[in-house]
Amino acid sequence: MAKTNDIEESLVLAPKFDADGLVTCIATDAGSGELLMVAHMNAEALRRTIETGEAWYFSRSRKALWKKGESSGHIQRVVEMRVDCDQDAVWINVEQQGAGACHTGRRSCFYRSVPLRQTGAVALEFRDAEKAFDPRAVYDRK
Amino acid sequence: MAKTNDIEESLVLAPKFDADGLVTCIATDAGSGELLMVAHMNAEALRRTIETGEAWYFSRSRKALWKKGESSGHIQRVVEMRVDCDQDAVWINVEQQGAGACHTGRRSCFYRSVPLRQTGAVALEFRDAEKAFDPRAVYDRK
Repeated sequence: MAKTNDIEESLVLAPKFDADGLVTCIATDAGSGELLMVAHMNAEALRRTIETGEAWYFSRSRKALWKKGESSGHIQRVVEMRVDCDQDAVWINVEQQGAGACHTGRRSCFYRSVPLRQTGAVALEFRDAEKAFDPRAVYDRK
Repeated sequence: MAKTNDIEESLVLAPKFDADGLVTCIATDAGSGELLMVAHMNAEALRRTIETGEAWYFSRSRKALWKKGESSGHIQRVVEMRVDCDQDAVWINVEQQGAGACHTGRRSCFYRSVPLRQTGAVALEFRDAEKAFDPRAVYDRK
């Protein structure tokens, strides 16, 4: 195993996949800087994203490789990709095609705020939660 | 199990912890918007972060709860916390105390870029990789 310092200062791409073969991927909007979504990539999704410059992910629930936008048309063109210090997370800064990144119809998946500095039960609050598109029109193909 | 739509539109905080009892946490800088780091929280780290308004994490390598800055002094004051659609990821927007978030001495953990639209071996490139502090001075206590 490589020493920690080698991994941190190396210019070799050496993703540290977890037990399921995945790294975390953070997608932000290249225009606004907004955090859009968090998902996962396996080695194949990472390879395809690097080669094509468009975001591919691995769905943990469906256990399947997927290209972002393959159903919705809302593909993500990657402007820049970075890895973090220990190479178990990838950041992609993207041009989000279409109205939003979230399958619920929002621009970002992070549309609920958690109140801070309180104890006990927590009630979330909607923030930037307006629908950017109608998910039924985009995803329902029946 | 709650229906997916209930989780996505609910105002109840119901984190979807993974098999190891963790959710992913993304920390961004409240001033610059910059992505600082990706880490994990267990239920206790999440509770403490909500109650104190300062970032607590769970280290997968050390298998221990830790308060960000407990060694370095570089604590993170949380300005806002949000959860994503399926509540398996948390975003905190923070005021980063001290010079940086990364234990290597950089401001952000994402200081290496991955070249895109190419095949074969990938050589990373340093980006924003200057040291903001000397990690030996901050962490070495021997």
